[in-house]
Formats: sequence, structure tokens, C-alpha cells
Amino acid sequence: MKFSFKNDYSEGCHPKILEALSKYNLDQQNGYGLDIYSENVANIIREKSKSPQSKVHLVSGGTQANLIVISSILRPHESVVSANTGHIFTNESGAIEATGHKVHGVETKDGKLRPEDIQNVLEVHTNVPHQVKQKLVYISNSTEVGTIYTKKELENLSEFCKEKNLYLFMDGARLGHALTAKSNDITWEDIARLTDVYYLGGTKNGALIGEAIVINNVSLQEEFGFHLKQKGALLAKGRLLGIQFQELLKNDLYWELAEHANLQAEKIKEAFQEIGADFLAETDTNQIFPILENSQIEKLSEQFDFYVWKKIDSEKSAIRIITSWATYGAVVENFCNEILKLK
Amino acid sequence: MKFSFKNDYSEGCHPKILEALSKYNLDQQNGYGLDIYSENVANIIREKSKSPQSKVHLVSGGTQANLIVISSILRPHESVVSANTGHIFTNESGAIEATGHKVHGVETKDGKLRPEDIQNVLEVHTNVPHQVKQKLVYISNSTEVGTIYTKKELENLSEFCKEKNLYLFMDGARLGHALTAKSNDITWEDIARLTDVYYLGGTKNGALIGEAIVINNVSLQEEFGFHLKQKGALLAKGRLLGIQFQELLKNDLYWELAEHANLQAEKIKEAFQEIGADFLAETDTNQIFPILENSQIEKLSEQFDFYVWKKIDSEKSAIRIITSWATYGAVVENFCNEILKLK
Amino acid sequence: MKFSFKNDYSEGCHPKILEALSKYNLDQQNGYGLDIYSENVANIIREKSKSPQSKVHLVSGGTQANLIVISSILRPHESVVSANTGHIFTNESGAIEATGHKVHGVETKDGKLRPEDIQNVLEVHTNVPHQVKQKLVYISNSTEVGTIYTKKELENLSEFCKEKNLYLFMDGARLGHALTAKSNDITWEDIARLTDVYYLGGTKNGALIGEAIVINNVSLQEEFGFHLKQKGALLAKGRLLGIQFQELLKNDLYWELAEHANLQAEKIKEAFQEIGADFLAETDTNQIFPILENSQIEKLSEQFDFYVWKKIDSEKSAIRIITSWATYGAVVENFCNEILKLK
Amino acid sequence: MKFSFKNDYSEGCHPKILEALSKYNLDQQNGYGLDIYSENVANIIREKSKSPQSKVHLVSGGTQANLIVISSILRPHESVVSANTGHIFTNESGAIEATGHKVHGVETKDGKLRPEDIQNVLEVHTNVPHQVKQKLVYISNSTEVGTIYTKKELENLSEFCKEKNLYLFMDGARLGHALTAKSNDITWEDIARLTDVYYLGGTKNGALIGEAIVINNVSLQEEFGFHLKQKGALLAKGRLLGIQFQELLKNDLYWELAEHANLQAEKIKEAFQEIGADFLAETDTNQIFPILENSQIEKLSEQFDFYVWKKIDSEKSAIRIITSWATYGAVVENFCNEILKLK
Repeated sequence: MKFSFKNDYSEGCHPKILEALSKYNLDQQNGYGLDIYSENVANIIREKSKSPQSKVHLVSGGTQANLIVISSILRPHESVVSANTGHIFTNESGAIEATGHKVHGVETKDGKLRPEDIQNVLEVHTNVPHQVKQKLVYISNSTEVGTIYTKKELENLSEFCKEKNLYLFMDGARLGHALTAKSNDITWEDIARLTDVYYLGGTKNGALIGEAIVINNVSLQEEFGFHLKQKGALLAKGRLLGIQFQELLKNDLYWELAEHANLQAEKIKEAFQEIGADFLAETDTNQIFPILENSQIEKLSEQFDFYVWKKIDSEKSAIRIITSWATYGAVVENFCNEILKLK
Repeated sequence: MKFSFKNDYSEGCHPKILEALSKYNLDQQNGYGLDIYSENVANIIREKSKSPQSKVHLVSGGTQANLIVISSILRPHESVVSANTGHIFTNESGAIEATGHKVHGVETKDGKLRPEDIQNVLEVHTNVPHQVKQKLVYISNSTEVGTIYTKKELENLSEFCKEKNLYLFMDGARLGHALTAKSNDITWEDIARLTDVYYLGGTKNGALIGEAIVINNVSLQEEFGFHLKQKGALLAKGRLLGIQFQELLKNDLYWELAEHANLQAEKIKEAFQEIGADFLAETDTNQIFPILENSQIEKLSEQFDFYVWKKIDSEKSAIRIITSWATYGAVVENFCNEILKLK
Repeated sequence: MKFSFKNDYSEGCHPKILEALSKYNLDQQNGYGLDIYSENVANIIREKSKSPQSKVHLVSGGTQANLIVISSILRPHESVVSANTGHIFTNESGAIEATGHKVHGVETKDGKLRPEDIQNVLEVHTNVPHQVKQKLVYISNSTEVGTIYTKKELENLSEFCKEKNLYLFMDGARLGHALTAKSNDITWEDIARLTDVYYLGGTKNGALIGEAIVINNVSLQEEFGFHLKQKGALLAKGRLLGIQFQELLKNDLYWELAEHANLQAEKIKEAFQEIGADFLAETDTNQIFPILENSQIEKLSEQFDFYVWKKIDSEKSAIRIITSWATYGAVVENFCNEILKLK
Repeated sequence: MKFSFKNDYSEGCHPKILEALSKYNLDQQNGYGLDIYSENVANIIREKSKSPQSKVHLVSGGTQANLIVISSILRPHESVVSANTGHIFTNESGAIEATGHKVHGVETKDGKLRPEDIQNVLEVHTNVPHQVKQKLVYISNSTEVGTIYTKKELENLSEFCKEKNLYLFMDGARLGHALTAKSNDITWEDIARLTDVYYLGGTKNGALIGEAIVINNVSLQEEFGFHLKQKGALLAKGRLLGIQFQELLKNDLYWELAEHANLQAEKIKEAFQEIGADFLAETDTNQIFPILENSQIEKLSEQFDFYVWKKIDSEKSAIRIITSWATYGAVVENFCNEILKLK
């Protein structure tokens, strides 16, 4: 069977999580997120991100996190601005609209929103009350195309949002990969300080399931539990989420796993660079998008699985390679050797 | 620490599930429910319930299952009828209404809906188009008060629904306990034959999370995946659900666990009967509601945890005792001894 | 053709409204409620109800007013309490649920909600966050069964709501009839003081269409225009609503028309009393519900149209008689004569 | 006071409508659209558009018509495609999204959708079930920028939609102006044959309020009344809508009024052409968008009101001039004279 670089959720979870699930298996706990593991997770997050006022809620997946956060914040006539590559704009089957809210999709060059992008949306929505009112900005870090925000960019965005009375929400499905990228200059503490809400993704970084929603803005914390319950996100056995994040966050396993994934991608990227390949986007997280000749793609896919992402012209296409906590070194070495043979 | 009879989701999962999660942990699988474990589960369900046309979708929890099934079936002006003890009517934070649909809550004597209950609702909603149109009937088996449907009752209901052009949906969060109750005369095959949709609950019967939605009515199967995705229920690692149900359903572990829970409840019930206690409802599943004197409740709660469910008068209250796959015999024996001392 | 007592919206509008529509017909005005007539209406309402901080918005109908007011106030997890005879509970095709909110229907003896009715709902919804949160109380005055609130009742309700942090919203589709009923002791000023929002119904009291929503609670006024627009209620020619209410409210025509309707109903009621008829409810507004023998109903329906409202037993039924601003004296005299012949 | 060319809803209604409202004022009629005038209107529309199977429903405004039609057709996971100048995309405060559905906004050069525009949307939404499913195409005729569809264009669009299993819905707020434009080659019968649903706008063509929704596709007609009621659009005095459309449609007054508006715009356009002005869009309906120097705009606005629509550069802007059934010849003559002085 071919090894797959199709995505970062092909395997189960890091073995330490399985160990912990076994260890605590018969301990009786309160349901619905009131277990001690979930409480521990909240405390660790508050402490490590130096954000003592933050509230933490664990849910099963990213689309769920997005739709609950957004619908809990917005009044019926308010909308959210996203890059048009944003997961909520294009990959969630209309989940946000299904809660009643418009998503404005903005064309960007690299998946990142900048103040001027949002300003453009604001400027064509001044006809009160005939047009929706923008109230929330949604960004992803790393983005859906693998890029990351710089500290300066995030500060600018945060400042702009405050000025315009907009909330800032960061989708962190791959936040681990962003903060451990070699070019990253943002700290966890910065995230807590510069966003109103964000989440730490578990599914794509070693957990079986789980995203940790962190609400930094106190005014958005009130009665959040109702929204979780109403949207079907309050697991009876919240312990499943608590134990996993406890394991990931104590001793920084979470960051190590993400860094591992990034490093594997880096090695593969270097191999592609060595054979002179261009890339669809400049990334140093766990997603890369090399552009290859069709014959090269064919050759490579004999031994490995990956997505052909975008047709460039009749002779070339970009492919997507994703690495994860579970991508082991020997496979990457083998893969790189095969890449080098393509020259 | 006191042993808790508060609910059937206090512990993790059956050890065989943990073993299977470990065994398959590094096997790469497709995401979003397209893993081989989930496919196996669908095949087992179709075969064992003798319902080859059924479609199966695995989701994380009961509220999620309820809101997705109901909102996928109803057009905007259609409503659902439920007992007023029904989970969707009273315990889901308005989840169904949040998808746009009215739930009619009907008073019942034992948590079970009968044709005449529904007929009463239909009769006061004939003013077209000023009133909502009833299109779906929601029942739970076992019900939220621990009772179960007889085969005759379910057949009557099913026939009535067909006659009135209503769909019938069974919440099976505790379907295992219902079908293994000693007074039960319904088979799995009957459920598949008599309902349009139902689900098999995993969370309350040995799984970490998970409910298996089974759509028997072919006309309701189309494009169901979109609804799962839109409501945030399509797990990237659907394998987590697939592996668990595969483990539960092969070799009938699922039914054994439920029967075990029922038997423990039965023993406890007998102890309460021996000291002359009355019960709030006549049940033989894993929930019992003995009525005790306050002093007895106080005494019992010194060593055990349980909910005081309903005040009967100034001297008596009903308590709720729930057993599960994880309630082991020694604890029950100990509990029974303490009960007998209350006489 | 038989004269119809079926409802209070069978005819067009009071002639003075037609005159005003003609008079102002070619005056150019701003659209979307920014015309001078609508502004005049707002000023008159603020002045006459002695509520200078109130905001006024004119919409076309009652269901529209109800759904916009309620959905603009509630957050997604909040619900509204209504009598189960309430228009929003039973006669609006699920309009409130379609905006995402649960309506709790409470059994009452006379269509009026009392603090204890609401307290009962609050008491069975304390399981946070598993149950919806009550945030709004909906009442109608006059009620759907023709009864009216006393000042004491309204004060009690208002005080209770404040204490429990609930908003109070009065559906005033027939508020004119309530405030001009002979047993009424509530003033317009009381309504403005004791409710957070109410509306003055035009459709059932002499206008072609139109209800005047009055928001007294300043915290509920913000950005209301967006909700009007989003729900399709912001008429391009808001002037149509403005001119009508201007005509109705200046010189107290509105109250005269309602009083006229009440007086006609009173005369008819006396005739029924004279022949010994009982009534379904004790009312002195423009709706009466006499209970007649089937043969009497048959006889009466030879010359007049009305609804048979409710079967009492095999020999008797209650009918509904509604009068309006357009029910002229001669018809009523004729009707009374026919009633007296039934003895 | 300055004469306003700001919009086509500044005045009341055509005098014949006021006459008819007076004439029928005291005739008692059934409520909620069951009056004889509304029935007559339905018959006239079916007959004149040669579409005997069509169903007709009268509502108060365009946003209301749009949101009800669209939400009645789509299942929760389905979306609608619109030009990004489309009223539903940009000018209805998120009304469509508030019913749960995504609107895809497509860039066009002239406000008109073509098959290739829609095909582009379909092609980037093939990832089932992760993306919404397009099911409806929304077009306006005349468009929001004053342009009209040719018969060939509409046929192509209709054919494409059928092929792709998409419904075609035409917003006809200004359909009168489209079908009486001098360059128009589409008949009313074509509209009925080529669209699944459309509406005839009254508000912008001589009525006080009102749009006539016409459902040609039989499969979309079922239970439409429930949607009207639920969204607050079913007027108790539907007679108000019925009488107006009866007056407009008998003797072709509707088309005469639209043609009158077009002719006035044509005269004004010629005056602007005479002074060498360019136009933002090529239109021959009742909206024109001449581009003027700022000094010219200033001069013109001394005597007339109109919107400055779009800044072209530091010296020039486009203005919007709208004419209507109520724009009388003498005013236009005067306006043209002032325009000619700008040379």
C-alpha cells in the first residue's frame, strides 16, 4: 500500500493519548465538559498563554468550532469577513449561512487578510440599514494555503479591528504548525492578546478529535455553553476531549508534534527545490504545493498518494503534500530520494 | 470517593475499544467517514437488521443526531411531534427550533407517544396555511423515563404515521437497553422495518462517543452528507467512530453491554422492592426511579452518588439510579446491601 | 349577500384614510420610512403616550411585527413564553421558530398570562446549559379570546418580568379595542411605561394595512432598521403606512373606531344575554363567543355569516361574532332582532 | 421644493388605483388572499402570459418576495447564484442568508448573468459534501443597473439551468420597464415559459405596494401559502394588493405606465447625449447613469434632486436619474433644458 501525503488526519492519534485514555478509563467523571481533565486543560491554556481571563471550551471539530463561535457572537443582521480561500467561505457546506449570517469572501494573494481588504468591504456597505453590517473578521493561521501571519501583520489587523469595532477570530486548526514554523515570530501569548477568540486544533495535530476554543474577550464569554449544547457540540463524555488535550499540552507535546510535521515538510520542500520545482505558495508549515510536470506527477504517484491540487497549464500542475505528527523520517527520506530521481 | 449512579456516561469506554484504537492507530485511512471501519459498520448494521437498503452515518452525539436528522427531513413550514419528556423538547437548548422548526410537546403518562396523542395535535392544526404542518414523529426507545415500546405499540404508531403521511424517527440513545430489556418483544429487524430513521446510541453503551444514524427510508437518504458537514458533524477522523462501532457490533458486544446494565438495574430494583419502595415509573431498562423517605436518601448518599429526581411530598422524593456497561457486580452487591439496611 | 361577522378585516379602510392618500398622493417623499408622515406618527405616539424616548417603526402586519420584534431581541439560545392561545404559538405557521427560537405555550383559563404561569416555566428550565433560557414574555391585549388585562395584572406582570430579567412584549393587534373596552382601566401611558415593546394594530381597526411597533426600552432600539429590512418589512413606500396612522392618530380617530366596534359587540352581547345564552369567555371588546343550540346557529346563519368556533356538546356550539369600525348600526339592529327571535 | 429623480417610489400611486380602492372599500371580502380581486389578478396573469398552470401570490415588497421564493425552494444545503450587483447579494441586509442559504455573487460587466458565469461557480463547487450545492439562479430584469436581457440571452440561460438541474428565478421589480424598453424582444409569454418563478413589480410601477409572484413550475407551487404566512407576508387585507393589481393589469395600464417612465428617461438621455456625456451603462429603461463634471453636477442639483452614484475620477462622477409613471412631461422638458445649458 502506498504511503499517503494527502492530509494530516489519516492516522489515529499520538500513542501517549491512547495511554492516557487507558489510564483514566474507569475513573468516574462529570459529563458535559465538567470533568477534571477539561478543567486542567483550561488552566494550562490560561497559564501558558498568560491570559488568565480566557475561557476554554473543547469541541470535536473545526467546522463545529467555527459555526458555534460565529453564531454566538453575531446578531442576526451582522456578517463576517473572510479570505475567499477561508474554510468557512468555501469548505463548510454553507455552515455559517445556515446559522443566518453572510460571509464576505475577499480575494487575497496568499490566503491572509489585511486591513485594506476589510476596509474595501466596509466601504461598499455603508447604506444603512439596506446592507448587512460587518462585525467579525475570520482568519486562519496557518492559512488554508499553508502561509502564516507575521506578528506585525497580526498586530495591524488586531488594531484595525478594534478601531472599526470588529471582533477578530482566528481559526487555529493548524495553529501548532503556524507557531512552530521556522519563519514564525508570533507567540502563544500574542495570539491570546491580539484575538478575541481563537482555537487550538487537535484533529490535525495528534488528537483523535478535538479543537480547544479559547475566548479571550470577556464580553463574548457569557452563556457560551448554551450555544455548544444547542449546536450538538457538548459531548456527554467531554473527558475524551479533556484527556487528549491534557496529554498534548503538558510537556509541550502539542508543539513538538507540529514542529515535527513542519520539519518533514521542509525536507521534502528542499528536495523539490533541488530539482528546480516552483511552488504555488511560499510556505514553511506542513503543507507544500510544488509545481511539477505531469510526467513527474505520474512517476511520483506510483509509490505515494497525494492530491493534484491545481492545473497550471497543459503540461504542469501543482500537487499538495501534507505532513503530520505521524509522518516518520524513513518514509520522508524515501520520498525525497524518489523526488530527486525526477530531475 | 463515592461510586456514582448518576449516569451512564461517567466512565470512558469498553476496553476492547481501546484495544482496537491501538491496533489500527497507524493505518492510514480516508477521512470524513470514508474509512473502511465505517464501511464495515454500515454493512454489519444492514445485514444484522436485515435492511439492505439502509444508509448508515456515524456522528458524535445524540443532540447532533437529532438536529441533523430532523432538519434534513423537514421543509421550513413543517414541524415535529414529541412527548413533552422527549429529549428534543426539553433537553437540547432549543436545538430543533434553532434549525427553524416547531416541536409540539405532548403530555404522556409514561414517556411513550401513542397514535391518539398525535391525532390530537393534528386535529388542532387544520387551519391551512396559518398553522405549521406536522410531518415527523419523534420517539425515544427506551424513553427518557426508562420505559420501552412494545412491538404492538410500535406497529400501531408506524401504521398511523404512514396513514397520516408522517415520518417516524426513533432516538435510540439507549436502544441497546430497550432491546435487551427482559419485557422487550421488539427485534432489531422490527426497528428497521417500522421506522424511517433511527439511531443506535454508542455514548451511553460503552463507546467514547458516537451514535449510528440509520436511514431506512430511501427517499430520506439523498444528499444526507451535506447536512452532516453543514452542521459540523462530519469528523475528519471518522475512523474514531468507525472503529468503535465495529468493535461494539461484531460479536454482539453492544447488546451484551446493554444487557449487563439492565441486569444490574434489575438487582437494585429488587432490593428497593424488598424494602417496600414505590417507583415513579415502571421500568426494566437501566434507569430506575425509586421513591424513598428523605432520611433514607440521606443515608444512602453517604456512600453513593445519584440524582434526587423529583420531590413527591415533604417527606419523600424519587431518586434516579442509572447503571451502565461499567457498573460492576461487586459495587451493585454492596449497594443492595446498603439498600436493605434502610428497611 | 349575507353580512359577515367573521372578522374585523373584511372591509377596506376608514374613508378619511382614502381621502388622505389622495390628498398627499403626488407629494414626493423619501422612501423606507423616512417620509414626513411616518415621522409625524412617531411624534404623535411619543407625545400622546408620554414616552419621549420611544422609537416607532411601521410595518404591514401582525405576524411580521411579532417575528421581527422577537428575533431582534433574543440571542440564539433564548426563548419566549406565551399563552397557548397566543397568536405566535398557534397561528403563525411557526414564524418564531423559523427565526430560531422556541415558544413555550402555557395553558391559561382566559388567554391572559400571569406571573405564576411564567414562574412555572422558569422552574422547569434550570438545567443550564441543557435547556433554553427564557428571556421574553409575549402577551396580547386584547387577547385572542377577547379578554383584556387589568392595570393591576399588567403591573404585576411587568414587575415580575423586571425581577426575572425578562422582557415584556405586548401584541396590540387589537389594542384599540382593549383600551376602549368599558371595563378597561389601563391608559396608553401605562402601556408605554409597563412594556418594553408593544404595537398598535391598524389592520383590525380601520387601516388598509399597518401595525405601529413602539420600542420603549432604549436598549432594544439599536439597529432595529436592519431587522426590518432583513425580514422584508421595510416598505419602499413607507408613506402608505405613515399617512394611514397619521390619519388614525390625529383627533383620536383610532380610539373612536375601536370604541364603535366594542359598542356594537356590546349590543349584540345583550341580545344574546336576553335569550339566555352562555358565553365561552367573559369579554367586552369586539369579539364575543355565545353558546347556542345547533338549530339556533342554523337559523341565524341564514342571514348572517360568522364562524362556528367550538363544539360544546352534541347539541350546542360556541360561535364567534366580531365587529369592527365598519359594522354599522342598522345591521346590528337587524342582527339583534333576529337573535331575539331565537328564544 | 426641488423635483426628485432619486427613485421610482417617491410618490403614492396611479389615481385609478385610488379610485378602485374607494369603489370597493366597503365590499366585504375573505381575508388572506382569498378575495375576488386577487383571484381575478391570478386569472388575468395566467391568461395574458398564456401560462394556465401558473400560481399567483401577491406580497408587499421585493425583498419579501425574494426571501420567500428562495427559502421555499431550497433545501438547507443548497445555494443561489446571483450577479454581485444583484439585489439579494448586496441590498437586502443578508435576508437570504438569514433564511439559511449562501448567495454566490458573480462579477459581471453589465448586471446580467450568463451561462459561463454560473458554470464558473459550479466548477469550483464539486467537492461533495464539503461545499454547498447550487440549485437556483437569481436574475433581475431590468437589472439593478438598468440593463435588460435579450430573448436569446434568456433562452440560453433557461436552457443551461435545465441542463444543470438549476431553477431560474427572475426578480421583476422593474419587469414592466424591461418589457416596454425600446430594445426589448422578450414577451410576457416568454418570461412565463423560460423561468420557474418570477414576479411583476408593482411598487416601482404605479402601485402603493405590491409584487405579484408567479410560480410557473408546478413542482414549486405546493404549500407555498405556508411560507407566505410564516414569513409575515400574508396580509389579512390581501384585497389591498388584489385591487391594485387588478387595476394595473386590466386594460394594460401596467405596461403603459412603465413605457411612460422609459420614454421620459429616453428624452433625458438624449439631452445628456447632446452635451456629449458618457454613460456608466448602456440602458434604455427608466434608469440612466450619465457621467458629468463635478461642476455640472453642482449646477444641475440646484434645481433637481438625484443621487451621485459613483466617483469616476477627481473631476467626474456618474449620477443616477430615475423616472417613473409619475414623472410628468413638463418637468422632464424643464430638466432637459437645464441639461442643455451645461454644455
